[in-house]
Amino acid sequence: MSKQKPQSSDAFVTEITPQSTDFSRWYLDIVRKAELADYSPVKGCMVIRPYGYAIWELIQQQLDQRFKATGHVNAYFPLFVPESLLLKEADHVEGFAPQVAWVTKGGTEELDERLAIRPTSETIIGVMYQKWIQSWRDLPVLINQWANVVRWEKVTRPFLRTTEFLWQEGHTAHETEAEAEEETRKILALYKEFAENVLAMPVVDGQKSSSEKFAGASRTYSIEALMGDGRALQAGTSHNLGQNFAKAFEIQFQGRDKTLQHVWTTSWGVSTRLIGGVIMTHGDDSGLILPPRVAPWQVVIVPIPRGNWQETVLPKCQEIRDQLTAAGIRVRLDADESQTPGWKFAEYEMRGVPLRLEIGPKDIEKASVFAARRDTRAKQSIPMEGLPAAITALLDEIQVNLLARARQFREEHTSTTDSYEEFQRIMEGRPGFVIAPWCESDACEAAIKAETQATIRNIPFGSAPPTAPCLKCGQPATVSAWFAKSY
Amino acid sequence: MSKQKPQSSDAFVTEITPQSTDFSRWYLDIVRKAELADYSPVKGCMVIRPYGYAIWELIQQQLDQRFKATGHVNAYFPLFVPESLLLKEADHVEGFAPQVAWVTKGGTEELDERLAIRPTSETIIGVMYQKWIQSWRDLPVLINQWANVVRWEKVTRPFLRTTEFLWQEGHTAHETEAEAEEETRKILALYKEFAENVLAMPVVDGQKSSSEKFAGASRTYSIEALMGDGRALQAGTSHNLGQNFAKAFEIQFQGRDKTLQHVWTTSWGVSTRLIGGVIMTHGDDSGLILPPRVAPWQVVIVPIPRGNWQETVLPKCQEIRDQLTAAGIRVRLDADESQTPGWKFAEYEMRGVPLRLEIGPKDIEKASVFAARRDTRAKQSIPMEGLPAAITALLDEIQVNLLARARQFREEHTSTTDSYEEFQRIMEGRPGFVIAPWCESDACEAAIKAETQATIRNIPFGSAPPTAPCLKCGQPATVSAWFAKSY
Repeated sequence: MSKQKPQSSDAFVTEITPQSTDFSRWYLDIVRKAELADYSPVKGCMVIRPYGYAIWELIQQQLDQRFKATGHVNAYFPLFVPESLLLKEADHVEGFAPQVAWVTKGGTEELDERLAIRPTSETIIGVMYQKWIQSWRDLPVLINQWANVVRWEKVTRPFLRTTEFLWQEGHTAHETEAEAEEETRKILALYKEFAENVLAMPVVDGQKSSSEKFAGASRTYSIEALMGDGRALQAGTSHNLGQNFAKAFEIQFQGRDKTLQHVWTTSWGVSTRLIGGVIMTHGDDSGLILPPRVAPWQVVIVPIPRGNWQETVLPKCQEIRDQLTAAGIRVRLDADESQTPGWKFAEYEMRGVPLRLEIGPKDIEKASVFAARRDTRAKQSIPMEGLPAAITALLDEIQVNLLARARQFREEHTSTTDSYEEFQRIMEGRPGFVIAPWCESDACEAAIKAETQATIRNIPFGSAPPTAPCLKCGQPATVSAWFAKSY
Repeated sequence: MSKQKPQSSDAFVTEITPQSTDFSRWYLDIVRKAELADYSPVKGCMVIRPYGYAIWELIQQQLDQRFKATGHVNAYFPLFVPESLLLKEADHVEGFAPQVAWVTKGGTEELDERLAIRPTSETIIGVMYQKWIQSWRDLPVLINQWANVVRWEKVTRPFLRTTEFLWQEGHTAHETEAEAEEETRKILALYKEFAENVLAMPVVDGQKSSSEKFAGASRTYSIEALMGDGRALQAGTSHNLGQNFAKAFEIQFQGRDKTLQHVWTTSWGVSTRLIGGVIMTHGDDSGLILPPRVAPWQVVIVPIPRGNWQETVLPKCQEIRDQLTAAGIRVRLDADESQTPGWKFAEYEMRGVPLRLEIGPKDIEKASVFAARRDTRAKQSIPMEGLPAAITALLDEIQVNLLARARQFREEHTSTTDSYEEFQRIMEGRPGFVIAPWCESDACEAAIKAETQATIRNIPFGSAPPTAPCLKCGQPATVSAWFAKSY
């Protein structure tokens, strides 16, 4: 990985806008300085740099493993969707058409029919499922695709909202409505488990309001996380598409009872947006803080260059690097002589490396290493004897602590109110989630959004029905909705 | 994976056109029947089905491992290339412009500047390298990208030539010409080792003629394989781009001597075309033959349903599946009662599974399994005791045998001639490679192609200079070129 180093080793990493000054600038500073992504010459499109892409690879591997363990397989469908296909499901085209990039020319010829660059692939996949599915014996079809998609966005922000982004999209077809619903919920649970155990990002899982559901879906479920500035981030969605796409694309099968029936389909996805979520859940004014399970380097070893360190300290550092690597730990040894240890400490803190090991002549005398945690900044000496096991345990502890800390932050930033005045007051600051009673009318939802910028993130599973009336209209409320300002 | 099964278990897999009747139809039959790929509603674009995509995942994993072991990292660059960027390198635009798909509209707005969908990414990456590289300390930059690309093709064939395809493209920048040349050759050697050891596909490595080199390159190297019909397949290319792109994109760095210099760049790629190469290198009239290292299922277990097999045979099959899986072998147990063992034998032969294990009551009595190899069709009994080690060894043997067999086929289909008449005669049948002296003039190369359809595949490294004159013009020849009809 290429690093642009300041010429002087005294030029420590600075120039990160404090979160309290401007959270949004802080975010952009981190993205740029940690070399996660960069702006490209194409409006709204980013370049994912090697350090950022390494995080994405870890996300991909750990999600893909989970998809396969639940019986899903990967495939690849075309980037292009002919316009006539996009038009087949009425709600779907209404939702996506305004955001589509259109190919009108191929080589030297004008196309007879223009091609949409996929904003999502329900339509092109629907055509194929119509060909592949004939009998109940062909079901379920459980396919996932890792791909790029394009949505023409007016306002973009690296990872969070870009014209092109990377994602996975699952598309499944089932024999019965119950099986499709089970799949939709199973994937949402998988996303929640992944977000919490891998990204250390606690999420609220529940159902989207009807105005926020996916264009063409019967029901949309989501996981919602809370960022450091009190705004919510929709981190993943799972859609029960009912028979809407099956009817639009005539995906029919002969049932066990020999009758011809439409399949029941689902779709679900998470994207590179998750990287934005990790940054804003854990980061601080010194930079990124990465949960060990998605850290490209879980441990950085910094040799302390005293005396004849290259004959004494350096070989020991190399030996320890090899030991830790053999134990499955991702390690970077930075023996670059053109930078001071101080510069390196700041650099790897900024890059969010969970654990730093400092090794100098004195540590070697004591047969120990000096360890500094990125999350708590706690420091301790650890004996070299049995180091891999100790480091593995410490990384697990950091992983658990980051989740606990984020969960506590969310609890401290979640309020409950029945009063619209109080609701408005909360939404003026750094609000977090506000749980409030809602009558499920689109009108109340829209009015609240217009007046406070807060949207309903979701209605969590299993939340008790409210006793108070609707926050906005005073009519009887049917659900307790989670509101927040959001990305 | 969804299978479309015939209703009757007597309907064995048939309907594969014999290779000798029509190799091209044989190929398309295999692609369709083995469910590797399917035609999509978008002209020239295919759908890679789960079984085909699983092969691609195995290719990706094993290549990516090799790239990382040689110091490369992955990143992701935008799908779109603004037209003005594509125009910057003169040879490059001349080579690619006729094949570009153009986006002219985003959402509801006409674009001021149209966007090419990347046919390859030298240009968009060049812009970023210009930003990222300042000093010799930033070099080398060793980045790879896994991505989709689009080239508007008139005639397409699944895997071999499609409008959209998946590939990896490496893009590196170096301080000196020698380092760039070393990288270009190192990657070609990596491709050759991968093709031979993983795909069991022997390849000839060498330099492309100047008319066949990459648009914008100083030198192009390739690996060339020989397919079962005697046509060559270009399986991978590695380009030394000199300072051509560095100058077009002003990628400059301050050298060790403090002077401002242009970097030296390379690019290299292999694609889903490799899957086509595997099919046509190994397949036969019964279907696909997959080398174990890229077989989604290396072993299929078919229980023989006799007597109370579900209480006796089936549990043993499951136990063996679990044993083999634990040993790192990819196993499928097909206990589906709606199909006969005979149907399954044909089905998995057609899908190219390297090894079939049949287990019935008699095998259990003898504490052995009955194994059938796909490559040689040899059958043998193997004791259950120590089965995982025996199967691992057998898979290795199959892997080695497939390479040896393909190498022998290539040797039998490679001729050497100094006579143009003989050359023309050979090219009329199923020709294979023909090694012949060439004067390195474009005119002779073009005339030979026009008259025989044969092109120069490459000039292999280290081949002895010819003593005879140029095959075509009779002037002194400088190199021994490898000719073939090609895909």
